[in-house]
Amino acid sequence: MSKKYNFYAGPAILPYEVMKKAQEELLDFNGIGLSVMEISHRSKDFVGVIDAAEEKIRSLMEIPGNYSIMFIQGGASLQFGMIPMNFLKGGKADYVNTGSWAKKAIKEAKLFGTVNIAGSSEDKNFSYIPGIQLSPDAKYVHVTSNETIGGIQMHTFPDTGDTPLIVDMSSDIFSRKLDVSKFAAIYAGAQKNMGPAGVTLVIMRNDLIDNGTDNLISMMSYKTYREHKSLYNTPPCFAIYLVKLVMDWLETNGGIEAMAATNNEKARILYEAIDNSSIYNGTAAVNDRSKMNVTFRIAPGELETKFVKEGAENGLIGLKGHRSVGGCRASIYNAMTLEGVKELIRFMEKFEKKNK
Amino acid sequence: MSKKYNFYAGPAILPYEVMKKAQEELLDFNGIGLSVMEISHRSKDFVGVIDAAEEKIRSLMEIPGNYSIMFIQGGASLQFGMIPMNFLKGGKADYVNTGSWAKKAIKEAKLFGTVNIAGSSEDKNFSYIPGIQLSPDAKYVHVTSNETIGGIQMHTFPDTGDTPLIVDMSSDIFSRKLDVSKFAAIYAGAQKNMGPAGVTLVIMRNDLIDNGTDNLISMMSYKTYREHKSLYNTPPCFAIYLVKLVMDWLETNGGIEAMAATNNEKARILYEAIDNSSIYNGTAAVNDRSKMNVTFRIAPGELETKFVKEGAENGLIGLKGHRSVGGCRASIYNAMTLEGVKELIRFMEKFEKKNK
Repeated sequence: MSKKYNFYAGPAILPYEVMKKAQEELLDFNGIGLSVMEISHRSKDFVGVIDAAEEKIRSLMEIPGNYSIMFIQGGASLQFGMIPMNFLKGGKADYVNTGSWAKKAIKEAKLFGTVNIAGSSEDKNFSYIPGIQLSPDAKYVHVTSNETIGGIQMHTFPDTGDTPLIVDMSSDIFSRKLDVSKFAAIYAGAQKNMGPAGVTLVIMRNDLIDNGTDNLISMMSYKTYREHKSLYNTPPCFAIYLVKLVMDWLETNGGIEAMAATNNEKARILYEAIDNSSIYNGTAAVNDRSKMNVTFRIAPGELETKFVKEGAENGLIGLKGHRSVGGCRASIYNAMTLEGVKELIRFMEKFEKKNK
Repeated sequence: MSKKYNFYAGPAILPYEVMKKAQEELLDFNGIGLSVMEISHRSKDFVGVIDAAEEKIRSLMEIPGNYSIMFIQGGASLQFGMIPMNFLKGGKADYVNTGSWAKKAIKEAKLFGTVNIAGSSEDKNFSYIPGIQLSPDAKYVHVTSNETIGGIQMHTFPDTGDTPLIVDMSSDIFSRKLDVSKFAAIYAGAQKNMGPAGVTLVIMRNDLIDNGTDNLISMMSYKTYREHKSLYNTPPCFAIYLVKLVMDWLETNGGIEAMAATNNEKARILYEAIDNSSIYNGTAAVNDRSKMNVTFRIAPGELETKFVKEGAENGLIGLKGHRSVGGCRASIYNAMTLEGVKELIRFMEKFEKKNK
């Protein structure tokens, strides 16, 4: 079997070292003769895993002590609902509409109060990060740091003063250095940069958690997860174990700064290849280009299907753009190596020569 | 490493054949060179997995066509909230209070309407299945088929007429033959008889789903899961894949009837050993004894700690009763072999001889 590179937007590839370790330990974790998914979530072996995952996340992201780290199920899609359910309380919130993911968050928030669209790039098919006009009376401001479909990314975040800034970081968490204290809450489904689908990381300032609506069902209240350290009920043990292994891998490989440097280089050479070609055209505004999801069209359009197909035949999988926008997309998350991106560029150059 | 038997109440052991297959395929699923957790949930490879899981569940349980099969996250604890959120609507529901799990379900339901306790065995520490008095005007009746802590199990279910009967079957699904058409909904966290923690199976009659409250957040509405065939957002792919492997294993090993026969035999010999001894005392009413969780005390009580400790030293892990009731417990779900139970009985007999 020849080497495959997966450019899917998600679930994405995990580091090879992580998968290899998971395979080795699958039948015998910590020498106990059982899999980590076959033991009580209250056993010392599993508690060791979840505690280590939390500590490593806190250390890698330099998360201050007044933030709680929680592992929740349901993906970012559940957070789209849980955030307004806990914090909107019939009031108003500012949402920045940068694409499909932001729109989903907005739809859920409308069930609990008023949504002010503080900025939108819908006029140009979400190809740029819009300017933001904050309301004076918003309960919180919600942004999406990276949009996987439009291929745009916030390279700076708005200063929201005392208003809590809540960010969906599903597709670029752990990809770059950030000052966590600028955010009241960060949430992210694991399946891009952190682990497999089935667990969501929520990092939330304790005063925001305190402020959550009472009388919610236990599983919809952040207070439940904080109070029980994500062990109110049985958590998705195996997914959390893989998150812990990915954190080990991040530590071993230089942490977030090293990831950011490689991510910058991967994005730089791929956008350069696009800009230097006569058939590939980047779709995102240059200043707002995502370093995680590189979107482009091919002229003439008939070549796009051919490109995706021949890419797959050459071991470069998942280069099709999202069905809602078409075109092509290469998702180059943390686990995608620089070598994988170079392989893609070599293929793009060959494809251009043959087809122009 | 000598053979270990895990008697934990959950997460429980999975069949060895399932774990072995998962290990073999972990780095290369279907020959695609990637793990099943590293591919898009909309890829044909993963859609093949989730479709097969659903079909096999439908076939094994003989689920009629007017029921939907859904994969949801959040465990039974989320269902405790989702059920009343969707169906109580300020009205009344009958709940049977058989133990800790039923109590958790009751607590959540009270947020959405009136709970009538249609039966309770709290007077005797949940050691029996109580008689049931149904209300004439309940929106639904909720029961827990098996209580892992008290070690009691419903061997028959109440006839609720036209009132929907909803059952939490987390700890005994797939353990015995049932007529699904008697229930409006069956739900079960996977981590006992079905797979790893992180996915919940919900089998629900379509007219009940139709009747769910509107204007819920997407992830709290059963309509979302039915409409999108559990793929509204990224599902817990790897957990669903393991459920599919467990269903393969069930099919290969004679289906639910064969499981039930082995489960009957395992429970019979273990309770017989308890009843024939002078130091072990079963805690559940004889007619309501669970075939999944065998609870017992040891007289004098000081022996209990010793029993649990020496059991573990002999490869028999997790024999401690739940912290809320103490004593001892052996959980003997589908994946526990008859040989494992015989090994436990041999240990119990030796322990009794040494300590009486």
